[in-house]
This record gives sequence, C-alpha cells and structure tokens, in this order.
Amino acid sequence: MDLTPRPEHKFSFGLWTVGWPGIDPFGIATRPMLDPWEYAERLAELGAWGITFHDNDVYAFEATDAQREQATTRLKKAADDAGLVIEMVTTNTFTHPAFKDGGLTSNDRSVRRFGLRKIIRAVDMAAEMGASTFVMWGGREGAEYDGSKDLYGAFERYKEGLDTVAGYIKSKGYDLRIGLEPKPNEPRGDIFLPTVGHALAFIAQLEHGDIVGVNPETGHEQMANLNYTHQLAQALWSGKLFHIDLNGQRGLKYDQDLVFGHGDLTSAFFTVDLLENGFPGQPDAPRYDGPRHFDYKPSRTEHLLGVWESAKACMQTYLLLAEKAKAFRADPQVQEAMEYAGVSNLRVPTIAADETLEQFLAGDDGFDPDEAGRRDYGFVKLQQLAIQHLVG
Amino acid sequence: MDLTPRPEHKFSFGLWTVGWPGIDPFGIATRPMLDPWEYAERLAELGAWGITFHDNDVYAFEATDAQREQATTRLKKAADDAGLVIEMVTTNTFTHPAFKDGGLTSNDRSVRRFGLRKIIRAVDMAAEMGASTFVMWGGREGAEYDGSKDLYGAFERYKEGLDTVAGYIKSKGYDLRIGLEPKPNEPRGDIFLPTVGHALAFIAQLEHGDIVGVNPETGHEQMANLNYTHQLAQALWSGKLFHIDLNGQRGLKYDQDLVFGHGDLTSAFFTVDLLENGFPGQPDAPRYDGPRHFDYKPSRTEHLLGVWESAKACMQTYLLLAEKAKAFRADPQVQEAMEYAGVSNLRVPTIAADETLEQFLAGDDGFDPDEAGRRDYGFVKLQQLAIQHLVG
Amino acid sequence: MDLTPRPEHKFSFGLWTVGWPGIDPFGIATRPMLDPWEYAERLAELGAWGITFHDNDVYAFEATDAQREQATTRLKKAADDAGLVIEMVTTNTFTHPAFKDGGLTSNDRSVRRFGLRKIIRAVDMAAEMGASTFVMWGGREGAEYDGSKDLYGAFERYKEGLDTVAGYIKSKGYDLRIGLEPKPNEPRGDIFLPTVGHALAFIAQLEHGDIVGVNPETGHEQMANLNYTHQLAQALWSGKLFHIDLNGQRGLKYDQDLVFGHGDLTSAFFTVDLLENGFPGQPDAPRYDGPRHFDYKPSRTEHLLGVWESAKACMQTYLLLAEKAKAFRADPQVQEAMEYAGVSNLRVPTIAADETLEQFLAGDDGFDPDEAGRRDYGFVKLQQLAIQHLVG
Amino acid sequence: MDLTPRPEHKFSFGLWTVGWPGIDPFGIATRPMLDPWEYAERLAELGAWGITFHDNDVYAFEATDAQREQATTRLKKAADDAGLVIEMVTTNTFTHPAFKDGGLTSNDRSVRRFGLRKIIRAVDMAAEMGASTFVMWGGREGAEYDGSKDLYGAFERYKEGLDTVAGYIKSKGYDLRIGLEPKPNEPRGDIFLPTVGHALAFIAQLEHGDIVGVNPETGHEQMANLNYTHQLAQALWSGKLFHIDLNGQRGLKYDQDLVFGHGDLTSAFFTVDLLENGFPGQPDAPRYDGPRHFDYKPSRTEHLLGVWESAKACMQTYLLLAEKAKAFRADPQVQEAMEYAGVSNLRVPTIAADETLEQFLAGDDGFDPDEAGRRDYGFVKLQQLAIQHLVG
Repeated sequence: MDLTPRPEHKFSFGLWTVGWPGIDPFGIATRPMLDPWEYAERLAELGAWGITFHDNDVYAFEATDAQREQATTRLKKAADDAGLVIEMVTTNTFTHPAFKDGGLTSNDRSVRRFGLRKIIRAVDMAAEMGASTFVMWGGREGAEYDGSKDLYGAFERYKEGLDTVAGYIKSKGYDLRIGLEPKPNEPRGDIFLPTVGHALAFIAQLEHGDIVGVNPETGHEQMANLNYTHQLAQALWSGKLFHIDLNGQRGLKYDQDLVFGHGDLTSAFFTVDLLENGFPGQPDAPRYDGPRHFDYKPSRTEHLLGVWESAKACMQTYLLLAEKAKAFRADPQVQEAMEYAGVSNLRVPTIAADETLEQFLAGDDGFDPDEAGRRDYGFVKLQQLAIQHLVG
Repeated sequence: MDLTPRPEHKFSFGLWTVGWPGIDPFGIATRPMLDPWEYAERLAELGAWGITFHDNDVYAFEATDAQREQATTRLKKAADDAGLVIEMVTTNTFTHPAFKDGGLTSNDRSVRRFGLRKIIRAVDMAAEMGASTFVMWGGREGAEYDGSKDLYGAFERYKEGLDTVAGYIKSKGYDLRIGLEPKPNEPRGDIFLPTVGHALAFIAQLEHGDIVGVNPETGHEQMANLNYTHQLAQALWSGKLFHIDLNGQRGLKYDQDLVFGHGDLTSAFFTVDLLENGFPGQPDAPRYDGPRHFDYKPSRTEHLLGVWESAKACMQTYLLLAEKAKAFRADPQVQEAMEYAGVSNLRVPTIAADETLEQFLAGDDGFDPDEAGRRDYGFVKLQQLAIQHLVG
Repeated sequence: MDLTPRPEHKFSFGLWTVGWPGIDPFGIATRPMLDPWEYAERLAELGAWGITFHDNDVYAFEATDAQREQATTRLKKAADDAGLVIEMVTTNTFTHPAFKDGGLTSNDRSVRRFGLRKIIRAVDMAAEMGASTFVMWGGREGAEYDGSKDLYGAFERYKEGLDTVAGYIKSKGYDLRIGLEPKPNEPRGDIFLPTVGHALAFIAQLEHGDIVGVNPETGHEQMANLNYTHQLAQALWSGKLFHIDLNGQRGLKYDQDLVFGHGDLTSAFFTVDLLENGFPGQPDAPRYDGPRHFDYKPSRTEHLLGVWESAKACMQTYLLLAEKAKAFRADPQVQEAMEYAGVSNLRVPTIAADETLEQFLAGDDGFDPDEAGRRDYGFVKLQQLAIQHLVG
Repeated sequence: MDLTPRPEHKFSFGLWTVGWPGIDPFGIATRPMLDPWEYAERLAELGAWGITFHDNDVYAFEATDAQREQATTRLKKAADDAGLVIEMVTTNTFTHPAFKDGGLTSNDRSVRRFGLRKIIRAVDMAAEMGASTFVMWGGREGAEYDGSKDLYGAFERYKEGLDTVAGYIKSKGYDLRIGLEPKPNEPRGDIFLPTVGHALAFIAQLEHGDIVGVNPETGHEQMANLNYTHQLAQALWSGKLFHIDLNGQRGLKYDQDLVFGHGDLTSAFFTVDLLENGFPGQPDAPRYDGPRHFDYKPSRTEHLLGVWESAKACMQTYLLLAEKAKAFRADPQVQEAMEYAGVSNLRVPTIAADETLEQFLAGDDGFDPDEAGRRDYGFVKLQQLAIQHLVG
C-alpha cells in the first residue's frame, strides 16, 4: 500500500491549521508562529497539493495596502515555487472586536458595511491568487440570546450580503464560487446557518445562488449531532458540494479540530468511500472532485515537530481509508451483501416509467406487509464487512 | 390574567398524545386506551380547538374499508359535535414491521409502493375530514449504518414520493398543504431530513414544493442541538412554516415529548414571543397564524387524571408565556434596551437604496473598527429584562 | 489471524439481547420470540462461553413458583448441556407499570417493598444458577421533574435497598458480587447514579460496599458524553470493575445498543487494549479478567438470520481489536513513541520516596517552565500509530 | 419583592469573571483589563459579599516574591476596605504552556513537581488571605487520545497530588477545605474527574479525603448531559458539598459561562430551591450554607457597562428564584400535590425499624402490582405548579 501523498490526491491545508499556535480559551500559545510562506514550503515537501488562507493569516487586520500587497505577493511566489495551488481563500470576520456581533448580520450597520467591504476586498485578492473557491464562515453571525436579534432582519441582511458578494464575483467575471461553511455554535451560542441543511435552504433563497454552495466541515456537522456523510450526500444531491473541510471531532463538545480520522473513524471511512467511490452503483450521480482540504488543529501539546506529524497524519489516514474503501467496494462478498440489503434497489423508481398514478393507485401488487416485515435486510452483516475491511 | 383556553387560541392536540398508553423501550403500557372520540370530547371540554391524528390512531393497520369508514365517520361526528376542527391528519409509516427500513426510502421497492399508496389513501381521508395540513414524519426514513443506503437514491426516492403526493393533492384540488416534520434520530440512528434546514433545502428541489412546507417540533430540533426559535424563524423567512409541534425536551437524549414549557422554558418563552408577536418591528414580515399544536406525551407515571392535567398544562403554559411575551414587548425599558442593542437596526439594508455597489466600495464611512469594538451591545441586560418579565 | 470465538475468550450474552424482538418506541415487534434455551444453544454453537438473563427473560412477571422453577431448571439444564456458564443474573424492575417511578426509590413504599423482595428473590435464583455477578440496573430509579423527588430520601432508600441486598448475599454466604449499572437517562429523564463515577461514589457510602462494584456499559457512559475507557480505568483503579457490558453507540441520542465496534471504533480499540493488555507498563495494577459480556440489540431491520450475524459480529470485532491491540503494544515504534510521550513517566511518584515534603518544597529542581512549555509530547504521532495499527 | 443583594446573601464572584476581557478561540479581547482591586470595589458596591481568585488573576505567572506580596497585600486591603470576604482562592495550572499536559498528571514529572509546588504556594496564600475554601480545577488533567496516558498512573499521581496538598493543609493547621471542580471536557478532550460523581468517588480513595469535597459548576455538569441539582444532592448526601459555582449553559456545546439563570431556567429554579429550602421535609438532612459563588463570563459583546449589568443579573436572578422557591414550598396546593405524588414517602424506610429481614421477606403485604401500576403520581401537575410559580 503506497501511502505517499502526491499532488494528484489534491490535499490542501489552511495556513491557519499548521499555523495555529495553541491559544485556547484557557491557555496561551505553546508554539511560535512562522511566516506564512514557511508553512507553505513545508506542506509542499510533505506532499500537499494546495494551500488556503484567511486574509489575516497573511497580513494583519490593520495592514496598509502596501503591506498586503507585499505579503500576498510573497506568499503567491512561495506557493508557485513550491508547486502549490492556492485553491481557496477566505476572510476573517470574527477575530477583531468590531465583529463581536457578526460581520454581515451585526446589529450595527456600520459594522455590516465594513464587513461587506472587507469580504469583497478579500474576493479580489482570492481572484488574484488564482483561487477557485471563496469560503465564507460566518462564525460570529449569531446570538447567545433570542431577544437580541431580529431574526427576520438577520436573514434579510445575510441574504443581502451574500447576494452582493456573489453578484460582485459575477460582475467581475471571476472564476470563483462561494462555499458557505455551516457551524451550529462556538464562538456564538447559536450560529445562523447551523448545518449544511440550513445553508442549502438559505442558498435556495438567493438571487445569485447559482455560484453559492457549501463547504461542510466534519466536526461542525457532528457538533449538531448529525452524520457528516449524510451532509455531503444531501449537498451532492443538491449540486452544491463546492468544497470540504476534513477533520476529527469526538462528540458534542467544543470544536476540537482533530486530525482527520482521529474523531469518528468509521464515519471517516464512509466519508472517504463517498468521496473516492461515489454513490454505490450510481455512475451518473454527482461526484466530488475538488480539493481534499484539511481544516484541523495540531494539538496544543505538540511543538513544531508534532505540527508536521499531524499534517502527515491527515493525509496518511485519508489514503489509508481510500485504499480500504476501494477494497470494500471491490469485494464480491460486500457486493453480495449490498444486493441482499437492497442497496441498489433505491436506484429503481418507485413508480414505473410506464405506469400512471391511476394505475399505480388502483393496484396493490399482491403485497403482504407481514411478509415484508419478516425480511432480513442484513444491514448488520454488511456493516460488519465494512468493519472487517476497515480493521482487518 | 385569564388563562382559560378558548377556541380562538387555536390549540390542537394529536390523538396519539393524550392517547399514549405509556409503552416505552423498557416498559409496557401503564394506561388503558380509550376510543379516539373519547379523547376528542375531553379535549373539547378542556378548551382545545382542534384535533389531529394518524390514520392508525383511529383504525387498525389491517382495518377493512368498512372499518375505516366507520371509525373516521364516528370520529368526524364526535369532533363536529364537540365543535372541534380536525386541522391536520398524518399517516403512520413507522409502526408496522414492513416499514422497518422506511416507507418512501425503504431498500425494498415493494414497501415503497405500499407506503406511497398508504400515504395517498391517508391524503384522501385528510381531505374528507376537512384537514388543512397533511403532516409527513418520515421517522423510519434513515439508517443506522452508512453502508446500508444509497444516499443519492434515497433522496431521489424521497423526492419522487413527495412530488407524487403533492402532485396528487393538486390534481384532486384538495385544499391541503404538506408539512414535513424533521427529526435527527430515533427510531433510526440517522434520519434523513434531520432538521428544519434539511427539510427546507429538500423542498427547494421538489417539483411541487409550493404546497410543501415544514412542521417543526420543539424537541426534534433540540435533539439536533439547535435553537428551536431560530428554526421557526428560518422557516418563516422562507415562507414555509405551515404547522408547528410544540412540546418539551431536556437536552440531548431520547425524544421526551414533555409538556410544552417543561423543557427549556426560556426558549419556550421566545418561541411564544415569535408566534404571538412576530419579528420585532417587522410588521410586514411573515407571521404564523396556524394551529398551536401540541405533540407531546403525558409522562408514563401518570394515569388518566394526569393525562388531562398534562393537556391542560400545555395550554396554560402557552397562555402564560403569551401574556409575558406581550408585556415584554410593551415594556418601554425593554424597547429602550432593544434600541440600545441595535435590534431594529437589522431592518435597515446594509447598502442604501440609492447607493451603487461602486459607491459603496469606494467609501469607508470613516469607520473606526476599534471604536466599533468597544460598543456595549447590552445583550445581557436585555436578556435579564426578559428573565425578569418571565419570572418576575 | 484466528478469529474463532472460544470459551477461553469468556464471551457472554444476555438472553434479552439476541432475544429482543424489535419493539421500539415507534414500532412493534419485527421478530418472533424463541424460548430462552433456544438462544442459549445457538450462542454456544457460535462460540460463546456464557449467558446472562433477567428473571423475567426466563419466566413471566406473574409466573407461579412452579412455573419459575420449571423455567429456570430447564434453562440451567440447557446451559449445562451446551457447556455454557450462567455467569450473571439480574432482575427486571422496570417493565411492569408498578415500577414506573422506580423499584428501590419509588415514591410508593409498597412498591419499594415489592421491588426489594423481587430483587432478593432473584438473588436466590442467581445463586442457584451458579452466577458470580448480580447486576442491578436501576433504569426507573430517577425522575423527569426535579420537584417530584426528595433527592436525599432517594439516596437514603437506594442505600437501604443496596445494603439490604448485599447484606442478604453475605448472610446467605452466596459467592455473588453486585454490579451496579449506571445510565444517565432513558427511560427516565434523569436516572440516579448516571455514570460510573456516581455509582462508585455511592458504593463508598454503603455499609456492605465491599461486595458492590460496577458494570459499566459502553453506550450508557457515552450517553453522558464520557470516555468509556476512562470509566473502566477509574473503576479498575478503585478496585470495583466487577463486570462489563460491551456494545456500540453513535453519540448523544437514544440508547442504541449496537454491536460492539459499530459505535465509536477507536474508543472500542482502546477499551479492548485496556481489557486485554492492562495499563501500559503497570504489571501490578488491577486487571479485569471477568466475562466479556455483550449487552446490545440486533437492529430491528434484521430477522433471525441477522440476529445471529450480529452476535457473531460482537465477538469477531472484539477478537479483531484484541489482535490489533496486542500488535500495537508490541510494536517497537509504538513503544518508542510512548516513551517519547512520557506515558510510563506517570508510574513515577511525583515526590521521591526518600524526599520529605519540606525538602520537596524547598527546592525548585532548576525547572524552566518555558522550556517545559516547548516540549513536544508527540501525542498526535502516537495516536496516528494507533490508527495505523487499527486500520493498516 | 426586594431584590437588593446584601452581604447576608453571601454572593461572591471570581475576579476572573468580571475580569474576563473577551478572548475566545476565535477572537481577541474586546474589553480592557482593570486592576484586581478595581473589580473588588465595584462588586462590593453592587452588593456582593465576597470575592475569589486564581493566584495569577492577581499577579503574573512569572512575578517575583516581592511582586506577589505587593499584589496580594493590596488586594486584601481593598477587600477589607470594601467589606468583602476573600472566601475562596484557587490556582492556575492551565494557562502556561508548561501545563499543556496537566499539572498533577502531566506525563512530565518535572511539570508535576512544579505544579504541586505552585499549588502549595497558593494554599499558603489562600490561608493568608483568610479563605475558607481552596478550589482545584484540573482543567488540563486529561487527554485527547486514549493511548497517550497511563490511566492508572494518572489516578495514582492525582491522588498523590491531592493527598500531598490536603496533608500539607492539615500539617499547617490551616482552616481550609479543598473543593474539587469537575468538568468533562474543554480544554482537554476528556478531563479526568469529569463529573461530581467521579470526584466524589476519587475523594473516597484519598488518605486525607476528609477535608476534600466538591465545587460543582452548573455548566460543567450540564456539559456531561447531567442534571445539576441532582449533582448537588448527591454531593450533599455524601457530606461533600463544600462550595458551588453558579452560571448558565445552553446545552451540549463549549463552556458558555452565561449569567446564572440565562441557561436552563427551570433547572436553576430547582437548584435555588435546594440551596435555599433544603430537601423537602428533611430538616435533618445536610444543608448548604456556603457562598453563592458565580463563575461566569460577561458576554464578549458587552463592554464594561455590560460587565456590571451581568454581575447584577446573576444576583438578581438568584434572589428572584429564591423568592419564587419560597412561595412554591409554602403554597398549600403544592404541598398537597407533593403529598399526592408521594414526595415525603421517600423519607420512610422501606423496611420498618422493628422488622427483621426474615419477617420482611416472609410477607407480601397483600401487594397488588397491577393496582400499583395504575397509581396516578401527579408529577406533571406538580411540575406545572412549579412552572406557574416560576412564571406566574
């Protein structure tokens, strides 16, 4: 099994991931910060294909135009030299105190105007860097207290903001799509667009929703007690899986951002199975072929050595699971168990193509519910085959 | 404070709520079952305005046509006699073993065909009963194991099913709308359409989505670790809040179905505030004026006396909270605190009506982020005013 | 890798596990019930070593003395014939409506007296059957509403009950120990003794606590958002791990009782590692050598074929993980990484044996906190080695 | 209703609470830091009775002896001048990178030695300040990865540390008791002693456990999906409720540290009921008469004005709930409903004082389980009376 990460695997990393110095709510930094280009070089050496960043991962919030230009130019050059793609850019509308009640949905219009300008400016930069996705995580768009927000207004302003950004992208002719990143909570008590479902529903209300999709993060969906693979599936089915953020989370707690596979391993296996193999027996169904992007944090107990080990671990686990998932699908025993379980049966329309509703309703197919109730679906056996492949 | 429930309050109850005999995963029934009409009469006496039911709350799964007819006729008569509206009807596609892998998304096509027929038959009955909403809770549409489902197929079949039902309603000219009821889990490990967001996103993909909306249940959304009032708000904003299920849940555990207000009381307060008072200062925003429907279970420790006490408690709590919510909104101190907090500011578009994007982007409003960061939003004080109104 | 279950593996199953007919809160039975001895025979064929049961798994709640005698005799004979050990017996104080507010802590003294007698009678039967553990799961000891219980009284009565049972066991000279089984909720909103910690703390207050320990169930602890392996460790450290219930749970929801390993797989790996290999480098630390008992439910989608597949899967996964855990511990790379991580350092007392507190406090070891803060613990790399062993 | 906080209410605040500048995992400070004595003065003005602090709330981690002395002297004087009690002191073994793997259970013995010295030094300071409780929150004692810890060693070292500290207190004759503060996670993935139960069980294993009890925090227990009032009750029953940390939490997410009552309001009501009124009808049962200590964080959206509003809100909510709880207990309707529910029945031993076990077992009281199963406990009605008192 060759587990060497290569560019064709399309692994990418946020600069803020390996660059996280270990500040948490109860502790100060345990690691020094390197310059952005230093991370890029090292990631390239490890086999990554791309990098991603927030504007303020590269230049300070208060940077002058010249400082921005200098920093992004240097980073772009470093990426080019290292053969790295800058596949995604995003903007930070959560760190500065001005954004404490949100960027696009702040109760303060002057903040919303500032936030919207900052986002659009980052869009220009993203286009300049050659990114294909612009992620928007509205981490501060939310509330702790139900009374503190006009929720209707919040959705209106969020829509106004998104449509303005998407409309701007179109007007500029940028080859960029927006990926909304849902999260249920942290740092706000309740964040708007808490899950993939809410983001997809929101996008359906936009004027320029055609270039807006989702960027689901493993841990974020799990923080809403949801199945991550199901989220990817609904996004794919809706034609909206524009980008992904892979990481690990161990249940309902703070946002852990562990290495991919260091959270729910079985779920990670089925995530990789979907990403690599597509829906079972649905060759025409939408597939995801974008970056395998990691949005994680090297544990605070690690120093720089551990940072790089953790980046390697993300890629290695993915490749390990990809191998396992391929073998799982190729195994005749698995195929038989899937057939027994009726997995492919969902491909078949419930009402036949040549059947009218009247015909359908008039009949009863001689169906015996009690007999149907005694069917053995063999789901446990099929799952055990997955475990055997995964662990065996 | 007059807390007598009256028809104009539009309180309605599922027959399966007061009719729940107390069977749970670890215990057998603690209460006898009455006939459906007996519940109806008693609910009318208590001040309810309407009732709702699953087909099999009124007649057995295996009932003959004559038995169905007899049972529904008798119930309809009882409701009419008692002055009760049958405002919603739903169908049971979860109790019988045939549905163990779902009704519309079962891996067994013969089950899907049977399920679809059963649903459409219940639609006819709903129309006959004069219901205005047909709720669909796909409690068995889901999986325990990721490998057991073709998720793309599942969404395709779910869509096929919904569009068939909605198309049938239109073709018949029934004055019925469908309310999808999301739930994240239980009785399946992961249910499809786990939250209001997912259901709204799904509806946006339907051909006949115009008559399909959502029926959010308090506890179900809370089981996905979400804010129920935010769910109602996004559904309202999307024009899709067709019906509601009010009850109580105490955190992330099994579906408790407690009395409304016996779960998260503060959240219940803001739910009632939204339902009764609408979005703050948004007179033109959508309002919910449908039934205040309770979908709860009288605790298994109670006998019939407790059943009726619990039904009374649901209505009384609602009325109590409605009074409190009205006083909250009317209080000048609260209005001042809301103004201070910028609540109404979200009504104001971020970009002015007469401002072009170019003009907007060219300016900076002389904005000082650090000053904005020092703003005191007064959210805690506003919340404390809410607590004072609620408790005081 | 030989994954054939054999008696020396000490796998045991509750009769209520394979015997669960698939009744859940929203569905009726999907499988027929066999006679208890039929399950026993089949489990023996599959390689199990022991069986366990509740009194009412074998005879009805209302059985006469003669019926009890007949049923237990027949089961005992079937077990003996099949070479199965009846290693644990427990009693059902949760199904019958009388127990709806608890057995030992019911607000009704007559119920408490009845419950206590039922338990003691089951103790006699357990002794007769040759069981070595008597499990007590107080599933109905709890409340939905804080006001409904005198919590002090509840603990007093729980203690009275436990001490009576334990005292009785001693007085009879039975070779039996009690295993308390914690659970945070379901079927009650809040169950007393919600976690291993609470049970251990409670035992410390008992008069006859020496023969009372815990029986931690994987899913139950995870329903309290806790790490199961940590629970086993604290119980072992306290000398109280008397029995275990292995199964699978996928996060914070209803009690899923999945096959062992079909929940959090990585956690299951470390559970098996602790059970099979003990604490790393602590040869003198307590070890668990009791039964590997499965308390799970075959999914409701399965018929009898799936029931047996699920029982096989429990044992197979355990054996798979045991192999992996042995290889993990034996791998020199892992040993090196553990050393690097300082795992064995916790064996070393913080204050030296020959050091007085005064001496200790007087010094500072020349400690440099900043240097210590830069230590790379290599925890992520160590975890990745575990994943590689588990998956690779 | 007089809701003015007064010294006799024994309200106390951590300096780190009002002093929290608003740094969270995704944002920098939104508020300036004042000097410790400035917080003290203001809290006194608001009606607080006491203050509490971590060593490093008052002097820097790297402070010289002279700097420590100067800072603590000045604070003590400010407290004295303001009439404030310094009721509790604690130590910070979590912020500095040296503690990234724990203080007493770090895998690095040099850190453990340093941590233990730091704690003991803080004990001396606590005694000097006149504190009666020394809280220990082992926020970094834990792990993200099961393989990274020798769990047996961890408990051994934790015990060694605690016994050393407790032994030191005794040897010095300080009038101090230790309050262990449990927390399930954050900042570590799994913290040792995750709940009140685990801490009580651990204390039972200590040599000097007599002066060690618990300091349960509302939100921490709720993060383990547990009922906070039940935690207080078990701690009281065990004679170990030495101190409390009141705040608010809205479900299973990051540690929110909201104002007391801004989380689960109904739970807060019953918490105050227990604290103010004791166990119902158990005049001889243990009561808590220690400080009403708030460990919360003013939301990051608030500036200094909001900080003081939030401190006022904590006290006001407590007083509001105390009034309500008194009226609840005094209401004859409530008393009747409690009697009906059998609440006081739990006071009555299950086996009579003059009854031998033999006699007890020989009888059956003529008990009819089916009749008992039909009892109406009236729990829902009782809960509704609580809601009426709380809201009405």
